[in-house]
Amino acid sequence: MKPRKKEKIFLTQSYFKYPLPEEMLKELSEELKDINRYPSGGDYIKLRQVLAEYVGVNKENILPANGSDEVIEIVTRAYKGEVLIPIPTFSQYEASADRGRLSKVLVNCLHNGVFSLNYSAEQLDKASLVWICNPNNPTGTRIPREKIMGILQRAKGMVVVDECNYEYLGETVVDLIDKYENLVISRSFSKNFGLAGLRLGFAISNPQNVKKLAAFGQYFRVNRMAEKAAGKVLKYLDYYQEVWEKMKKVRDKFVRQINELEFFAYDSQANFVLVEFKNKKETERVWKYLKEKGIYTLAGWENEFSGLDNNFIRFTIGIEWEMDKVVEVLYDYAKRS
Amino acid sequence: MKPRKKEKIFLTQSYFKYPLPEEMLKELSEELKDINRYPSGGDYIKLRQVLAEYVGVNKENILPANGSDEVIEIVTRAYKGEVLIPIPTFSQYEASADRGRLSKVLVNCLHNGVFSLNYSAEQLDKASLVWICNPNNPTGTRIPREKIMGILQRAKGMVVVDECNYEYLGETVVDLIDKYENLVISRSFSKNFGLAGLRLGFAISNPQNVKKLAAFGQYFRVNRMAEKAAGKVLKYLDYYQEVWEKMKKVRDKFVRQINELEFFAYDSQANFVLVEFKNKKETERVWKYLKEKGIYTLAGWENEFSGLDNNFIRFTIGIEWEMDKVVEVLYDYAKRS
Repeated sequence: MKPRKKEKIFLTQSYFKYPLPEEMLKELSEELKDINRYPSGGDYIKLRQVLAEYVGVNKENILPANGSDEVIEIVTRAYKGEVLIPIPTFSQYEASADRGRLSKVLVNCLHNGVFSLNYSAEQLDKASLVWICNPNNPTGTRIPREKIMGILQRAKGMVVVDECNYEYLGETVVDLIDKYENLVISRSFSKNFGLAGLRLGFAISNPQNVKKLAAFGQYFRVNRMAEKAAGKVLKYLDYYQEVWEKMKKVRDKFVRQINELEFFAYDSQANFVLVEFKNKKETERVWKYLKEKGIYTLAGWENEFSGLDNNFIRFTIGIEWEMDKVVEVLYDYAKRS
Repeated sequence: MKPRKKEKIFLTQSYFKYPLPEEMLKELSEELKDINRYPSGGDYIKLRQVLAEYVGVNKENILPANGSDEVIEIVTRAYKGEVLIPIPTFSQYEASADRGRLSKVLVNCLHNGVFSLNYSAEQLDKASLVWICNPNNPTGTRIPREKIMGILQRAKGMVVVDECNYEYLGETVVDLIDKYENLVISRSFSKNFGLAGLRLGFAISNPQNVKKLAAFGQYFRVNRMAEKAAGKVLKYLDYYQEVWEKMKKVRDKFVRQINELEFFAYDSQANFVLVEFKNKKETERVWKYLKEKGIYTLAGWENEFSGLDNNFIRFTIGIEWEMDKVVEVLYDYAKRS
């Protein structure tokens, strides 16, 4: 894809920025004539089979939902008590806890440019629900498997590992769902398969947990188009894998280039990169400068994240020419100031 | 439309059984290429404007949701306490109360073939949430406006009028949302516009109530295709109105024909008709006989309704040839027994 003249560049929401497979869209459009009919609803047997096969588990291990936001909402309602949240992180863990009027413990895990999950034994004893976002949003940080296992072993409550960027990270703890009764994994088709608009997320856990969680969700929570789309995108896994590899190259190049300037970019295993600036004033200046050039990014002062302060901007990784343009603009900015 | 040979007839779920406007489907298919992008989310400003214009209110009066099931879920979470439910009725009022572990009072309103809302003053004093389904599902009964106003005046809690069959009934209490602070109305695009598969419902109330309810819903609760479809179907209102009139004629003819047999069909203002049989044994016999002939219907022993006993079958009103076939099969049944 080539840039159109003066095209605006949206790097706010972290969605799949490449075109969807044309043949897949054609197949999906044929499903539209049946949207007068309800989704399968309830057990969503076929959809669960499709998702289970992709993940490598049984359909009894899968609970489909209206985006992974609904997974977050459902687990929060199912495991009421005290919610343990590592910050900075994705805002919806806190939002769902607030909707349920649950008590929250926000644990600052970002120190001197390093995000490191550091829940204490006491915190893990008390919490009914422990969040791990892997890779963490917005830092993009990989959480080591041993650390997740340590938390699973120690926690008295449920541990939810948000793997909505699994396809970019390439690591999962799905193989541990039988070993740890308190493990729930959250996945999504939004960012990696380009179905953000249709809303398709799902929980993975042991059958007992899945049954319990299902009781907290509505009957028709996943719409018919999302239901049909899952199987269709998976037929094009090769294409998606190519795009994921491409995105990673663009991302890693962007991190290197940003660090060559005076700014600090966090290493990322997701499709976004967090950049830290000297102070709020500079962050605002950069954010505005980018915006004037038609580049929209997500700053710490917006509501997307819990506990992210005003020295940060998160850049979604777009198409290569978009990121080249961002670097060019930031280079101009650095030269001017 | 003509019957295909041995075609099965599904009269279980009450969905829009006519073809959707082709031009509308074509326009909608063009939106598929953007499903990699998130829905508007949060305030859903454009969607609320479209819905508000259709209803004849302001966008501040509208809360879109993932089907009217989600409206039911959201109001139940927002107005916790004791839930007053008239039976027999749609099962989701009870299901949402159960999910929230709220106490329920089920009030039997069906006596001697007549459904009549008969909440007592004491019940209306105590309830935090009062349900009115108008027309009632599965009886199809119109609830008189004066009765709704009486309940609104007397109730200490919130009163929710489920108008998901408004387009068939042609009566609404939308004009009362400023007069009664405790009024919330629920609507849907499932049954009347044929968008059941996309999930689009919405609440209508005063801006204060809408703001409160919004805090109980997720940010991305309505998917992008549902969001885009609302405005598109409304461009074909003439077509839909024709279909609604056609359906009503088929329905009323069906009611007459059923009553000419030995069975008792309730007068209906919706797109379904409830039929009462002598006893459970006969109901089962009829239900099985229909099924053997490829006609699928919803009996009292299924989970679709609260407080419907085993003497009932609900028939969704399908295309005319389908209903003619049902009558023919029931005529054969009556002759044989």
